[in-house]
Amino acid sequence: MPTMAEKITPRDKDFPQWYQDVVLQARLADYSPVKGCMVIRPNGYSIWERIQSTLDQKIKKAGVKNAYFPIFIPESFLKKEAEHVEGFAPQCAVVTYAGAKDLEEKLVVRPTSETIINAMFAKWIQSYRDLPLLINQWANVVRWEMRTRLFLRTTEFLWQEGHTCHATAEEAEDFSRQMLKMYVELSEELLAMPVYFGLKSESEKFAGALRTYCIEAMMQDKKALQAGTSHNLASNFAKAFNTSFLDKDSTQKLVHQTSWGVSTRLVGGMIMTHSDDKGLVLPPRLAAQQVVIIPIFKDEVSKSKILEKCRELEETLKNSDTLSTLGYTINPFVDDDESKQPGWKFHEYELIGIPIRVEMGPKDLEKDQAVFTRRDIGKKEFVPYSALPTLIIDHLKKMQVELLEKARTHRNENTFEIDSYEDFKNQLETKGGFFVTSFCLDKDLERQIKTETKATIRCILLDDKFNPIKSDKPCFISGKKENCVKVIFARSY
Amino acid sequence: MPTMAEKITPRDKDFPQWYQDVVLQARLADYSPVKGCMVIRPNGYSIWERIQSTLDQKIKKAGVKNAYFPIFIPESFLKKEAEHVEGFAPQCAVVTYAGAKDLEEKLVVRPTSETIINAMFAKWIQSYRDLPLLINQWANVVRWEMRTRLFLRTTEFLWQEGHTCHATAEEAEDFSRQMLKMYVELSEELLAMPVYFGLKSESEKFAGALRTYCIEAMMQDKKALQAGTSHNLASNFAKAFNTSFLDKDSTQKLVHQTSWGVSTRLVGGMIMTHSDDKGLVLPPRLAAQQVVIIPIFKDEVSKSKILEKCRELEETLKNSDTLSTLGYTINPFVDDDESKQPGWKFHEYELIGIPIRVEMGPKDLEKDQAVFTRRDIGKKEFVPYSALPTLIIDHLKKMQVELLEKARTHRNENTFEIDSYEDFKNQLETKGGFFVTSFCLDKDLERQIKTETKATIRCILLDDKFNPIKSDKPCFISGKKENCVKVIFARSY
Repeated sequence: MPTMAEKITPRDKDFPQWYQDVVLQARLADYSPVKGCMVIRPNGYSIWERIQSTLDQKIKKAGVKNAYFPIFIPESFLKKEAEHVEGFAPQCAVVTYAGAKDLEEKLVVRPTSETIINAMFAKWIQSYRDLPLLINQWANVVRWEMRTRLFLRTTEFLWQEGHTCHATAEEAEDFSRQMLKMYVELSEELLAMPVYFGLKSESEKFAGALRTYCIEAMMQDKKALQAGTSHNLASNFAKAFNTSFLDKDSTQKLVHQTSWGVSTRLVGGMIMTHSDDKGLVLPPRLAAQQVVIIPIFKDEVSKSKILEKCRELEETLKNSDTLSTLGYTINPFVDDDESKQPGWKFHEYELIGIPIRVEMGPKDLEKDQAVFTRRDIGKKEFVPYSALPTLIIDHLKKMQVELLEKARTHRNENTFEIDSYEDFKNQLETKGGFFVTSFCLDKDLERQIKTETKATIRCILLDDKFNPIKSDKPCFISGKKENCVKVIFARSY
Repeated sequence: MPTMAEKITPRDKDFPQWYQDVVLQARLADYSPVKGCMVIRPNGYSIWERIQSTLDQKIKKAGVKNAYFPIFIPESFLKKEAEHVEGFAPQCAVVTYAGAKDLEEKLVVRPTSETIINAMFAKWIQSYRDLPLLINQWANVVRWEMRTRLFLRTTEFLWQEGHTCHATAEEAEDFSRQMLKMYVELSEELLAMPVYFGLKSESEKFAGALRTYCIEAMMQDKKALQAGTSHNLASNFAKAFNTSFLDKDSTQKLVHQTSWGVSTRLVGGMIMTHSDDKGLVLPPRLAAQQVVIIPIFKDEVSKSKILEKCRELEETLKNSDTLSTLGYTINPFVDDDESKQPGWKFHEYELIGIPIRVEMGPKDLEKDQAVFTRRDIGKKEFVPYSALPTLIIDHLKKMQVELLEKARTHRNENTFEIDSYEDFKNQLETKGGFFVTSFCLDKDLERQIKTETKATIRCILLDDKFNPIKSDKPCFISGKKENCVKVIFARSY
């Protein structure tokens, strides 16, 4: 139980501390005794469950089927794709003995499953008739991290990883783009978190991929968060595992593959996008309970009548078909616990982010009204009792949209076009944000920028056809005029 | 793709081989390159998803909330409860280095989570107001096994593990019983798998528990399968982790706990309960697709009309509100793939266990009828086209019930009351089955019986109030007359 004494550090005082305060005090997650591993508490896990069920439907709609592969990967498998092992080896947790014996071959706890999955794909795929093969798994993965942060970067995290095989390079490329678009939709429609999508630079792409697409969100402190990635793996893993098929033309060919994932990191991104100094602000679609109704008891005479009215409202809301109007069934509840003061309840429900609060006291009963408060706005409004159901459902719809719009405005207002490295350094230091600029993609310069400013290329911007947007301006740092593209630079989580 | 050439070994020839043939050929699971770990393929995973969603609803209805705890347990934690470590240490997989360094403290990959969860409970629980604390997690666990079998016993498996804390011993005992009843319901209503429930003997109970309740099913080969367990942990782990609370009477007390789980083993049990020599037989509630409609094309003239009729039936079924009549939405589909012969399709859908098959050819079109076949019965029936929707929905309901009844009859016919050890040994050897007998619970005799016959006490039978049923007969082996109870002996998986 949180006590009134606990205070959330304001965002403008210390943003990272604010984030940690919200996560801990709203009981979303907790530190565990295992370094870098978090415990996801029920308030946080219910958000992840909502992300899971929405995304799972989208994944299935795309024709992808769920399966489950082993958590352990033989060390030799990880080594089969050269770039892959180089990228992941430093982060691996390794089982060296089991069943009270030293293992002959060490087992890596999966940091991602391309290798173990390819070992199976190679066995299952024989002919073009077996393609496309579209598989997804919901799983835990482990990457040993130096510095961790609840939800955003943890040694163990939960995610989904999609793995697909296609007969042609074009199909694989198309599918990796389709999955990226699915993530854009998920992020904006469910989490109300606007994202830029784009292509990772060579130095930031997935270890083993030909090409990595990503979605990037801006947090309230104007730093970037990579919220999802979709990789075109070409035949890199297929080559390593000989995942091949007999094509219609009777020749044996390697499959073309994709992989794509989002993780519990999304929960952290959502928190840092919407929440405020009073605690969690939740888009209604992500809330386990959207409406709390609080009766305020002053005397025994009015008490039973107030409670009756509150229960009646609860019933009306439960019986309204919000599945067709909102796309989900709402779950309102009355808190009539008399051992707690209304003030304590207000604080508690603001902290844990119940989107709408309704209060009703003796005076409201007299006037046949109630007090209505939306969590993101915070202003109390007196509303005729009979108008409540429509108003509440209306505002749940509005709140979902307005949170997205508010975040989009914040992001747009903090995304700047910039033409020179000097201006970039100054502005990054003084006000932060996303910086759209013309860049020649020189790797050494990219490294220099990172060292000097801690900013990285978040993504190369793409047009509607997923082609990098060519820039007609010279590179902002080298001054080169040829082959420059539009990129976003920012500091990131 | 399976080919017609593959044959399933008949059950009466080699039951374990039959089981493996069904699992592999119906593409439910596959062996992985990691010893003892399996891959759950989409056909198998969709069954697990249905078990998950049904059970998850029941768990939530009981007031339990989902959360997630780390996969790693510091070795020292596992050692805090003496019986627990003794029970699990030989089966542990241990991470000794991570992040390219040897770890200071080794990390065990969770075989079960009582210890790591208690470390958190001890932190979260202060007062009686925090109780009961009812938590569940869906997770993977690892237990190093010598001999493994797909779904039934694998090194890694998927499960749910519930963990609860209560203020009194009575409450904990009640809750452990309530969860066992939930498993009985799940097993019988969803998996159509009848179970006996009871208490484990001291030597068979969970390492660290006061008392272990279980459900036991009989497979078609008359062997037992432990399908779920619910433990009253008393304050054993609470003592080890000092999980205590300030009670109403202002004294500090240890909590009383339960834990309970079912796993992907249920999928294996379901297969061994219903399936036959042609492949998987699935209770309709567990099927991802309940009805396949196969048009049989002979000439171009009738082709479009047949296909139209098939699609019409598909639509009618999709639009019928089976959520209210059956409790789930059915998912019928037409297979009009002309590259495959009807014979291949019949074989395929029998193999993967689609509950109902409808065929329609030119002659059926003429007679305005179709051919209807239920997977578990296998007899073709000619049915007027207009009668199909009602008949299909009716049979989906019936099939679910009749599979349970059939399994219950098989079990009851192979459960024998027995009074002497000689009779027991003879009958166990000659015909197998479950043997209900009077036993004095002497541990040495229990061990002797296991050594001599490979049979174990599956459970001590309980009356409606969960009290062991006292026997008025002498013990079947020692002849003792005092303190005998009714138990079931059987060989098991």
